Amino acid sequence: MAINFKDYIASVPDFPEPGIIFRDISPLMADGAAYAAATDEIVAYAKDKGVEMIVGPEARGFIVGCPVAYKLGVGFAPARKKGKLPRPTVSANYDLEYGQATLYLHKDAIRPGQRVLVCDDLLATGGTIAATIELVEQLGGIVVGTAFLVELTDLHGRDKIKDHDVFTLTAYEGA
Amino acid sequence: MAINFKDYIASVPDFPEPGIIFRDISPLMADGAAYAAATDEIVAYAKDKGVEMIVGPEARGFIVGCPVAYKLGVGFAPARKKGKLPRPTVSANYDLEYGQATLYLHKDAIRPGQRVLVCDDLLATGGTIAATIELVEQLGGIVVGTAFLVELTDLHGRDKIKDHDVFTLTAYEGA
Repeated sequence: MAINFKDYIASVPDFPEPGIIFRDISPLMADGAAYAAATDEIVAYAKDKGVEMIVGPEARGFIVGCPVAYKLGVGFAPARKKGKLPRPTVSANYDLEYGQATLYLHKDAIRPGQRVLVCDDLLATGGTIAATIELVEQLGGIVVGTAFLVELTDLHGRDKIKDHDVFTLTAYEGA
Repeated sequence: MAINFKDYIASVPDFPEPGIIFRDISPLMADGAAYAAATDEIVAYAKDKGVEMIVGPEARGFIVGCPVAYKLGVGFAPARKKGKLPRPTVSANYDLEYGQATLYLHKDAIRPGQRVLVCDDLLATGGTIAATIELVEQLGGIVVGTAFLVELTDLHGRDKIKDHDVFTLTAYEGA
């Protein structure tokens, strides 16, 4: 069964602010067949990479990455915002439109040499995913690939993570 | 393989504030076998309930609920905090230690009569899960069960959702 993933993505104009079209993946996740198909495509992408761990940034990265982890039989580690992880962490900054934000990962989430797939819903400017990769690499992990449901090609997120392999299910031109 | 889930839960004293022991499920999620075993136990609990949809509150509820949704072949809908969902929502309030918070669910996330399993990591006072159930019921959904990795029995969360069936993998006395 071939699924056109765009049929399950809602385009919401002027969210979260005027001029932005928000690509909302919630209809895809709400449809059992579409959600499973998206998961299975990422699993197929990951299959020959020897993935030992999935890391995804808060919070939609959990929705994408967790079923992939389950299907591959590996663990999942969340990259989280400030104050959410109770034990010792590493941190990485990334740029927002105004100012900066920081992501954190538990220090024991990744072992040195562990092969990691990074998952998120959307590749836009790539800031969040670059920070997530940096967290994994601080701990000695090897990012063997990155996977997204949606890519916004005009924002050139691939340029920010150009040393890494990128898999996306579907893409839009224009932000 | 029988897993003692408590072996994979880190107890962190004085987080997020003095006197609280935080039960951190991240070691469980980071271990592929333990995460899969936890997921499979919830799937087994859900099996005879005719579950058509999983709903989980932000953000650890996603980590628990999403692989369950995948394994059951059903969709997942996130209950989120303010400003996160781009399309029309319903809302429900719940009490925090100081003041209130609000959770939101997309109006089209649940169809009337749909059978829903609510998942989260932790059953403590039950406030978050009661609000999540309220969201589902506002949309006409039927909450056929609730599932958690950890229960803090002394906080009596079951009393707050006593019309609903509760499944937990492991429990601690004392907060």
